[in-house]
Amino acid sequence: MPLLVVGSVALDSVETPTEYRENVLGGSAVYFSYAASYFTSVRLVGVVGEDWPDEHTQLLQRRGVDTAGLQVVPGGKTFRWKGKYLPNMNDRETLEVHLNVFETFNPQLPEPFRKCPFLFLANGSPVVQMQVLEQCSGAQLVVADTMDLWISTQHDELLDLLKRIDGLVMNDSEAKLLTDDENLVRAGHRIREMGPKFVVIKKGEHGAMFFSEHETYVLPAYPTEDVTDPTGAGDSFAGGMMGYLAEKGNFEPQTLKEAMAYGILVASFNVEDFSLDRMQRIERADLDHRMREYRQMLTF
Amino acid sequence: MPLLVVGSVALDSVETPTEYRENVLGGSAVYFSYAASYFTSVRLVGVVGEDWPDEHTQLLQRRGVDTAGLQVVPGGKTFRWKGKYLPNMNDRETLEVHLNVFETFNPQLPEPFRKCPFLFLANGSPVVQMQVLEQCSGAQLVVADTMDLWISTQHDELLDLLKRIDGLVMNDSEAKLLTDDENLVRAGHRIREMGPKFVVIKKGEHGAMFFSEHETYVLPAYPTEDVTDPTGAGDSFAGGMMGYLAEKGNFEPQTLKEAMAYGILVASFNVEDFSLDRMQRIERADLDHRMREYRQMLTF
Repeated sequence: MPLLVVGSVALDSVETPTEYRENVLGGSAVYFSYAASYFTSVRLVGVVGEDWPDEHTQLLQRRGVDTAGLQVVPGGKTFRWKGKYLPNMNDRETLEVHLNVFETFNPQLPEPFRKCPFLFLANGSPVVQMQVLEQCSGAQLVVADTMDLWISTQHDELLDLLKRIDGLVMNDSEAKLLTDDENLVRAGHRIREMGPKFVVIKKGEHGAMFFSEHETYVLPAYPTEDVTDPTGAGDSFAGGMMGYLAEKGNFEPQTLKEAMAYGILVASFNVEDFSLDRMQRIERADLDHRMREYRQMLTF
Repeated sequence: MPLLVVGSVALDSVETPTEYRENVLGGSAVYFSYAASYFTSVRLVGVVGEDWPDEHTQLLQRRGVDTAGLQVVPGGKTFRWKGKYLPNMNDRETLEVHLNVFETFNPQLPEPFRKCPFLFLANGSPVVQMQVLEQCSGAQLVVADTMDLWISTQHDELLDLLKRIDGLVMNDSEAKLLTDDENLVRAGHRIREMGPKFVVIKKGEHGAMFFSEHETYVLPAYPTEDVTDPTGAGDSFAGGMMGYLAEKGNFEPQTLKEAMAYGILVASFNVEDFSLDRMQRIERADLDHRMREYRQMLTF
């Protein structure tokens, strides 16, 4: 089934302990779309400026991503982010953020997109996420991401959104912030009680946890010694997870667990190079091969 | 098969964000022995002072632990440790350490102990660990633990020890310190190249990683919302792991992975109360029950 994502499209400058890349393709909706494209047809809604290189759009299109919802603002500039990773490659410092055209992003979904059965609201203001949700009232599965900024500055709007969505994906520090609880198991269940039917807490190099009314589990990350650039790991995790759910066309417990595993594996490839560079060199068969290794790792 | 452990026996004072316990039973060899006793017969070698309450010895004996190697130093005082856990229950501050009789601990193994086929050298000076190893030259499997102090102050002695043991168990920050590498997958393999046939890196609430020549894997911790006191988690992990290997009487890859899982599960019980309090309320059947849940959690 088709999958719709609404989120940021960006040009990132990334500094790691050993390398620096300037103005490379990034943004939550980009990482998400590319990751999901291994599993299903993806429709992307986002906004860029006149400085946007058309080759990036073509790259997404070559993976079958429908970019009819990518709005180009005449005279505008694309969202830019600049960050620096600490030697542990897990913590990072944001050096610069220029929201540019993303600041006034007011997504208007093309008519054919509004009936999309699977919807992912990538990280963004909960007010904007709610506006998108209202344009897609018939969606069967709505999952959102959020971040510390919105937990602090738009807390009530976020709580309203949580009552309307099926799933929430967030990272561990955000889950602790939202619940004021340092224990992730308790935090996950408390967030679920705020509305979503399921909650996924991403733990970076330590994998991801899942919470629903009847299930609590944690799956480890795929162990890789080649972490070149973690940017977009969380978004490609979500893309792999949602892409697989959309491919299967259901969100039964067993499908959700397989989807979590695919999310983890797509993310494990994503961090092996800058931007989408590593992802461009893999096919679905590479994901399935790593999945066999991953299942083997967890079998005893 | 019988399992021998040589390590510290202590009285701990533990402060958590909500509770305080003074002079409770602790020490690496104590947590290890108790955890291993669910699987095999355990022989403990350690030292205490005249202040040692005999009820603690009886507690271990009731689980079948052979305490013939627990030396009582006349006029001496038992090793004492006082620590405080931060709200995340993962990081801790050491407030006081009084080594007392442990400072001059010079383990002389009772003759019948020297033929023990499975040996665990709990955290201690690598010089003392080597002295023990030389008294047990016929052991089939020798596994050691270590810590940051020895990595910094007895580096060469530790490297000598690594060439003589089969397995090393240590936590993530120590693995990074020993290799000066922030990537745990690389760190694990580099430590293995220093001598041990296998290396286990404990990641606390994030589980544990295993490295051998042909295998690399990570198993997550069992998700628990009830973390009351993490003291001894690493030692009870090692006790569960080694206890299971000794029970099976081999250390084939499949047995090692099952042993890792049992170690994780024993530790998950251990943290649910202070000292050995939670462990005293469980039986082998509780471990096997949790094992079925754990296997289920990792199956998809």
